[in-house]
Amino acid sequence: MRTARLAIVGLGNVGRRLLELIEIKHEALRAHYDLELRIVGVADTSGAAMAEDGLKPAEILNLKRGKKGVAAYPKTGRAGMSPLDLARAANADVLVELSLTNLKDGEPGLGTIREALTRKMHVVTANKGPLVLAYQELAKLAESNGVKLLHSAAVAGGLPTVNIGKRDLGVTIIEKFEGVVNGTTNYILARMTEGQSYAEALKHAQNIGIAEADPALDVDGWDAANKLVIIANAVLRRPTTLKDVTVEGIRGIKPEDLQQAANHRQVVKLIALAEKRGDEYDLSVRPTRLERSHPLSKLGAGMMGVLYHTDINGTIFAAIEESDPYPTAAGVLRDIVQAVSQ
Amino acid sequence: MRTARLAIVGLGNVGRRLLELIEIKHEALRAHYDLELRIVGVADTSGAAMAEDGLKPAEILNLKRGKKGVAAYPKTGRAGMSPLDLARAANADVLVELSLTNLKDGEPGLGTIREALTRKMHVVTANKGPLVLAYQELAKLAESNGVKLLHSAAVAGGLPTVNIGKRDLGVTIIEKFEGVVNGTTNYILARMTEGQSYAEALKHAQNIGIAEADPALDVDGWDAANKLVIIANAVLRRPTTLKDVTVEGIRGIKPEDLQQAANHRQVVKLIALAEKRGDEYDLSVRPTRLERSHPLSKLGAGMMGVLYHTDINGTIFAAIEESDPYPTAAGVLRDIVQAVSQ
Repeated sequence: MRTARLAIVGLGNVGRRLLELIEIKHEALRAHYDLELRIVGVADTSGAAMAEDGLKPAEILNLKRGKKGVAAYPKTGRAGMSPLDLARAANADVLVELSLTNLKDGEPGLGTIREALTRKMHVVTANKGPLVLAYQELAKLAESNGVKLLHSAAVAGGLPTVNIGKRDLGVTIIEKFEGVVNGTTNYILARMTEGQSYAEALKHAQNIGIAEADPALDVDGWDAANKLVIIANAVLRRPTTLKDVTVEGIRGIKPEDLQQAANHRQVVKLIALAEKRGDEYDLSVRPTRLERSHPLSKLGAGMMGVLYHTDINGTIFAAIEESDPYPTAAGVLRDIVQAVSQ
Repeated sequence: MRTARLAIVGLGNVGRRLLELIEIKHEALRAHYDLELRIVGVADTSGAAMAEDGLKPAEILNLKRGKKGVAAYPKTGRAGMSPLDLARAANADVLVELSLTNLKDGEPGLGTIREALTRKMHVVTANKGPLVLAYQELAKLAESNGVKLLHSAAVAGGLPTVNIGKRDLGVTIIEKFEGVVNGTTNYILARMTEGQSYAEALKHAQNIGIAEADPALDVDGWDAANKLVIIANAVLRRPTTLKDVTVEGIRGIKPEDLQQAANHRQVVKLIALAEKRGDEYDLSVRPTRLERSHPLSKLGAGMMGVLYHTDINGTIFAAIEESDPYPTAAGVLRDIVQAVSQ
């Protein structure tokens, strides 16, 4: 039996689900991978807690349910201790970075990830900010320290988009990548197709918790663009940042536009596209009319999907239907297992 | 730069394509994996050839195009040398077993694979016979010898069905698996939906080379059942053989049946199904009516696809469109890379 020591940063929707899964999947991890996960450190906005012999997931979840942070963890909790402090102090095999995406400077995730990689911890993250701002730097840092940087849950949640592209299509040339990778805009467009206005559909999405109060990151296309940048770096192997992507969101879409598309038997989706031109890729995110025969046209609300058009591996389509953050947390757990496996 | 030494058994459609890909992807293997593949041995029905410093793929392909076997390979070819002899004599890191599926006793593949694993070679195979007849024995033999047994190209060709299930869904419970995993029957049913009779559609499939002269393995459902057995062992982690699967083929299907289904807005597909009941799975292959909203109902001729219904990872759909054996050979190449990677 191997024990993998985890330091977890960020206890939002995904982080809390991950704690639940670590409990629920205790037996499966033991049976399938001969692996036990021990949480030796955890940080949220209140502070941090550390324990060599392991913190209890149920105890942490209790604190969060009581609207307290981990600074209140019995005996070991420390108010104000930062994620960076945790990365410096924790004796962990894997740092799991799940703090909120910050596209300005990537902090606090970026500094924490740098520190962890330098200290030869594997890093698993679903936080797009650091990857979008500094993919190449972080990938090189991981390589030079002989550790892994895994982020399969950062693109399309539980769908192993990056794993399929990087691992299964590693020797193919990807001629074209097309994806519906933002669930919120796909939900809004699906609602609008049923006749709602943009404002109504957005309000509905906000009411059920799949759109933020400030929806700009989603509806202006930046979340999809972030994911495309990660795919371009990780799968297409091209050093890429956000400025390489042409981005257009869905704010300007009217029900009439969708109706007009429908009259031509077409469907409008927000498509993240990478198209090979010579040795480079043209990258864009924009509302796109698809024929109804196009696989991505069939992705309803609650679904995401991607298409890889390749030279020697045919055309591969992968899609996921997910109705809560568990699949994203499951993606993080899958990466943790991979990080500590040969 | 690492060199991986390969011994390749079987030079049919997939084996010959693999040789082409090893040439075409020379640069990509070097750039992406720092890896060079050297063919130190090869066997077909004529005999075998071996060379420590590498056989030339182009030379082997030339012999095959000239309707000669590798026994005629200059200097090193040996008539009558068997695959088993090759596994005993070759100094290889990976044995690639691509001989034809034999469901009676799995030979010559089964003996060759046993020998290679015992000699601590990794084994990559797209040959279903040995896997279906002796999955558990071979998996244990690989484990006890500290080597890998990879077979991602044995199920649905270039679609990484097993990889997604085993690697990406490794800690999930798969509540249900549904697949269209036999291209020939899917082609025939697609043609019949357009109005052809079973006999006409079969003849057409034979004419374009996607059905064998004796089509029993495909049309009676055994090929799909083989793939389901591999998935049950590798992904569902249940020791399984063919006798655990209820199998019904498509010979009895009439155009009227498809028409009647269409009248109910349904489509008939040959579905490989694994459904969890308590701690076990009910396994079957049979023609099944699907609603038109079902993702597998949309797989046209030339496509295959699978659906994983999971506990914590949502529902994942993956499909491939492939029109030649290159994707299967690409799957073999992907496994070779994985076999020699950490």
